[in-house]
Amino acid sequence: MPVGNCDTPQHIYPINGIEIGVTAAGIRYKNRNDLVVIKITESANTAIITTKNGFCAAPVLVLRNHFAAQQPKYLVTNTGNANAGTGEEGYKRALASCKALAEKVNVDISSVLPFSTGVIGEQLNDNALINGLDDALADLDANNWLKGADGIRTTDVVPKVASEKISVDGVDYHVTGMSKGSGMIRPNMATMLGYVATDANISKDLLQTMLVELSNKSFNRISVDGDMSTNDCCTLIATGNASKEVIDHAKHPHYQALFDAMQKVFIRLATLIVRDGEGASKFITVNVTGGQTTKECCDVAYAVAHSPLVKTAFFASDPNWGRILAAVGYAGLAELDTTKIKVCLDDVLICERGMPADSYNEEAGQMVMSRPEISINIELGRGDASDTVYTCDLSYDYVKINADYRS
Amino acid sequence: MPVGNCDTPQHIYPINGIEIGVTAAGIRYKNRNDLVVIKITESANTAIITTKNGFCAAPVLVLRNHFAAQQPKYLVTNTGNANAGTGEEGYKRALASCKALAEKVNVDISSVLPFSTGVIGEQLNDNALINGLDDALADLDANNWLKGADGIRTTDVVPKVASEKISVDGVDYHVTGMSKGSGMIRPNMATMLGYVATDANISKDLLQTMLVELSNKSFNRISVDGDMSTNDCCTLIATGNASKEVIDHAKHPHYQALFDAMQKVFIRLATLIVRDGEGASKFITVNVTGGQTTKECCDVAYAVAHSPLVKTAFFASDPNWGRILAAVGYAGLAELDTTKIKVCLDDVLICERGMPADSYNEEAGQMVMSRPEISINIELGRGDASDTVYTCDLSYDYVKINADYRS
Repeated sequence: MPVGNCDTPQHIYPINGIEIGVTAAGIRYKNRNDLVVIKITESANTAIITTKNGFCAAPVLVLRNHFAAQQPKYLVTNTGNANAGTGEEGYKRALASCKALAEKVNVDISSVLPFSTGVIGEQLNDNALINGLDDALADLDANNWLKGADGIRTTDVVPKVASEKISVDGVDYHVTGMSKGSGMIRPNMATMLGYVATDANISKDLLQTMLVELSNKSFNRISVDGDMSTNDCCTLIATGNASKEVIDHAKHPHYQALFDAMQKVFIRLATLIVRDGEGASKFITVNVTGGQTTKECCDVAYAVAHSPLVKTAFFASDPNWGRILAAVGYAGLAELDTTKIKVCLDDVLICERGMPADSYNEEAGQMVMSRPEISINIELGRGDASDTVYTCDLSYDYVKINADYRS
Repeated sequence: MPVGNCDTPQHIYPINGIEIGVTAAGIRYKNRNDLVVIKITESANTAIITTKNGFCAAPVLVLRNHFAAQQPKYLVTNTGNANAGTGEEGYKRALASCKALAEKVNVDISSVLPFSTGVIGEQLNDNALINGLDDALADLDANNWLKGADGIRTTDVVPKVASEKISVDGVDYHVTGMSKGSGMIRPNMATMLGYVATDANISKDLLQTMLVELSNKSFNRISVDGDMSTNDCCTLIATGNASKEVIDHAKHPHYQALFDAMQKVFIRLATLIVRDGEGASKFITVNVTGGQTTKECCDVAYAVAHSPLVKTAFFASDPNWGRILAAVGYAGLAELDTTKIKVCLDDVLICERGMPADSYNEEAGQMVMSRPEISINIELGRGDASDTVYTCDLSYDYVKINADYRS
């Protein structure tokens, strides 16, 4: 079961210029929403980042080509089949899906971007997808974010939506997004799929820069199992309908408030993926401070977050902090002085000077470990940089879910 | 249960110049062999490699200092406690153990090397260790390899011994070794502990070179869970008692046959660790060929061997080869042409040109996956280099063992 608060927001603000349509097209399973179309207003700017996996899926290849050609007007997402490891035939089918949609709505094919998530290595049932397009288009509505989030789920237990509203100098801005993902999660575009939109008027270049920065504190800082997907994509759309004034640089007076609201949405969508991590029973925040560089903090945080031994200890609520130290030790930091490292579980100091803290006792450790949400705070004592990674424990259920996934 | 043939060899050849003594010193558990002393003849040369973990254990620090000072005459190993994450106090206790042994046998303290394996982060019961030394010394015997292998076990189910005998130009050479390890296993000195001895007369420099080379095809090519231990050490001893003639370069007429026999012993000891991997139900050999460099083949093999999704698919006997492709894709190879990659499970071609092979059917994949020992053969089609990594699946029992380990 998902860990902690995974509730949908009380207010999900529609984004003026974005409509979402959902249907059950029977792509892999019957009677399950599996096709989501997002319509983007003409005026919008869109930024995208995609998986760094060398074996990336056919829709990702199509998407990159189309996105290079022009601004997208439609995003079409199917679940049930990732259309990855499907060669030329897979590419053709992704293209056929775009073509069918483009003809129905009378736009250029390259303004349609395809997204797929699900099983790898089987050919996509593009006929089912194409046959479902009319229903999805008929369903287009600005208030369909939650329905859309439900429609892009695979092994996700909860639909993932986040939404924020801010006012700056009398202008109301809204930011709303949805994501999916629960396994095969690790950095370099960690979420399998994420879509965030705002009605702010942001230039294309700035939007792309913001997307990279926002993701590097959210989707690129989570880990469930360390496996990188072939299909990861994150899209950020600015429709521009909230204001005529274009925000095109980071010094703009509205920029920081808007960025902060967007960062909230991104972090919420990313951490929802971890809370809903396959088999997760604990939500773990790994904070690393006192590093020489952000990169080395990130390396340490990921070494801890990926360690099966750390993750199984958290599953067992066992304050086996030696496993945390071992993972810090193999993160590859040059000239690591272990006597300067401090480790806390939440606010309980468990070790310093490379050994158990004098004040530490097993009961205090046990008390923290019994919590469903725990932070591991690692002070390296060699600089001022810091970074944070979000992860979950490794449970029987992770093995069960992934041993059963195709059956 | 361990996978496949984990039998002890029919002949375990004693090594002239090596004696092993074992006792139950009650370091953590009562009535369990947990203290092993190895006595090395004066004439021997010894080579050692140790963990690259920055948080390495106290005995490893002591060992490095002692080994830099002189040739070792005694190796003292305890199980039950790794003496890692124990700070200055841990260092003192490792030193106290060496000192006690040195005084009993009247050698310099720096000719004693300490090794520890077991739980991390608790102070070593060095009193129990020291009190056990007399019994261990009284037990010294050239025929104690199996008893020694039993004495260095922690979560290992089987004791791990390998032994070979060869004759070259009328000289009989023997190579015998033991190892321990079953979790927290990954490259960079993967085994927690390994000791191999031969009666060949090999110069110290050549011996060290050989140890690195032998390990890079064995202990440094295995993975159970990707966690690197704080205590990994591998020792190679050449007692020199088989022949007066010194082998001091790789062109020596006896070198290759001897190296091959040693490689056999190393690979057997390393793969026994994988076969006995925590919770393992499948033994998996990942062969990568057609790479531009050995390093990139190794990177691909490890990406596959470390992937929890690949490992759970093998546990489920599910030929979900898409997960293998996804792991190949994130191994970090520049300009990977996925259309040139072929993947076979044993001799069944499952994919080529980035998609399922025409000849492939699920039944054939299923048949291979039901075997307890499977090879994943990945041809990259971009060069002549190759490498091999040994791993196992990820099962419920891995989680169970590591969630329970301290209790």
